Amino acid sequence: MDSFAARLDEVAATKNSMVCVGLDPDPRRIPIDDVSEFNRRIIDATHPLVAAYKPQMAYYEALGIPGLHALEDTIKHIRDVAPDVLIVGDGKRGDMGPTATAYATAMFDVWDFDVVTVNAYQGSDAVEPFLQYPGRGVFIVCRTSNHSSRDFQDLRIAEEGKPHLYEKVADAAERWDIGGNIGLVVGATFPMELRLLRADHQTMPFLIPGVGAQGGDVAEAVRAGADGNGRGMLVNSSRGITYASADPKDYARYARLACGSLKREINMALESTVGSPE
Amino acid sequence: MDSFAARLDEVAATKNSMVCVGLDPDPRRIPIDDVSEFNRRIIDATHPLVAAYKPQMAYYEALGIPGLHALEDTIKHIRDVAPDVLIVGDGKRGDMGPTATAYATAMFDVWDFDVVTVNAYQGSDAVEPFLQYPGRGVFIVCRTSNHSSRDFQDLRIAEEGKPHLYEKVADAAERWDIGGNIGLVVGATFPMELRLLRADHQTMPFLIPGVGAQGGDVAEAVRAGADGNGRGMLVNSSRGITYASADPKDYARYARLACGSLKREINMALESTVGSPE
Repeated sequence: MDSFAARLDEVAATKNSMVCVGLDPDPRRIPIDDVSEFNRRIIDATHPLVAAYKPQMAYYEALGIPGLHALEDTIKHIRDVAPDVLIVGDGKRGDMGPTATAYATAMFDVWDFDVVTVNAYQGSDAVEPFLQYPGRGVFIVCRTSNHSSRDFQDLRIAEEGKPHLYEKVADAAERWDIGGNIGLVVGATFPMELRLLRADHQTMPFLIPGVGAQGGDVAEAVRAGADGNGRGMLVNSSRGITYASADPKDYARYARLACGSLKREINMALESTVGSPE
Repeated sequence: MDSFAARLDEVAATKNSMVCVGLDPDPRRIPIDDVSEFNRRIIDATHPLVAAYKPQMAYYEALGIPGLHALEDTIKHIRDVAPDVLIVGDGKRGDMGPTATAYATAMFDVWDFDVVTVNAYQGSDAVEPFLQYPGRGVFIVCRTSNHSSRDFQDLRIAEEGKPHLYEKVADAAERWDIGGNIGLVVGATFPMELRLLRADHQTMPFLIPGVGAQGGDVAEAVRAGADGNGRGMLVNSSRGITYASADPKDYARYARLACGSLKREINMALESTVGSPE
């Protein structure tokens, strides 16, 4: 079976897209009441344009067990209409030993995600059980897109070169990788850090949130985050796509337009760098 | 309404117990098939002896939506038979902005936990929404009981005194506290660190996992972790109590015995230090 990194590369090449659409249904913002139906229409309108969907677990859990049934419907619908598209389970789980094993069971065996986000504060124990699934992957939370990511991730470590904590996390992630199953979450809102991490980790896939509503510059992030082949990443937008219109009659059409426009913006940024010296 | 710290202090004093029983039903280890019934019998047998129960989300999620129904049953049963006992939601959630708000909704409004574990790698953003619930609390993951906690938590920060990362996390936690709603997760397996953290943070409640199956010494951990009143902590045992017997006929009775013995061990360790110089 292909590694997760190879699968990501293949879908990005086949679809000519590195767009990841975040499916984060907030009941105060979605224009229709039915979460499954809301997601279904977004998926139907956008799947030819995307490499991945990323349901954020928190939004489904906040709706209680009915929310988790909506997540189940959503995953099934993606598999039905777009079996080539990857599904990222964004739960940032992180625990130890048998508990981490139970989380891997939940995210891979129960929910059937292709790749999940994991918080590695507890060290290698938190990640190891997720590496036992051939073809599946883990994006380790490294440098997040929020302002208060500075609180800990930017701390400098007292050793040679005074690396930041997020650099230590990235180094450990690359060390723990067993054949293309570990990537990093790096926010588009920090393009300098993104560039630095790509220079140090040339082949790891990056999940890049923070464009769109969070204000990260797409072209800058893409140029900083792409690997040597101009791929190796998923660029995620959630609210910028799913809430492009608040009108129940046309939100899916506007989601498709926003998705197409993000796809073009990413691809143009890459074309303009191919062959050009940095 | 009383702060979370005050509520914890009250239940510990009233019950004369700081025992927290972890409810982590692993289908390969529980002696009967029905998770709700397994937990119900454990709760019925142990609730007079405990200050708190701690369901670990991973084990319920690993069973899919039926597992979450079992969690629902379990929480309802604790509220019915032991309304004074605190329920700790151990999910180590950690995310930013609207996502962190959705997690707080899930853990407090949907699941009705009294206190939850939170991973603060993303900084204050990850914690802030959980502080908007009067009387409820957050245990921030600080120094965990597993071996690979050393990977990042023990890193020394390049500033005066070269504090460890976990000390920076504890300092931030105390700074973020708004009136007794933030505590720390500190593993019993690291009594030196526990003592150091207690010296620096005299009033924060500690959730102390790692006794029992994980091998932390109860007396040592209790003496290191207790606050000035000989309280201020929950000492958690999961497997050591719930799997004290694998016999479907007597596991609840053995859980009660293990629970009583942990309670006595904690209280004796404290009595032996009262009035004695360190």
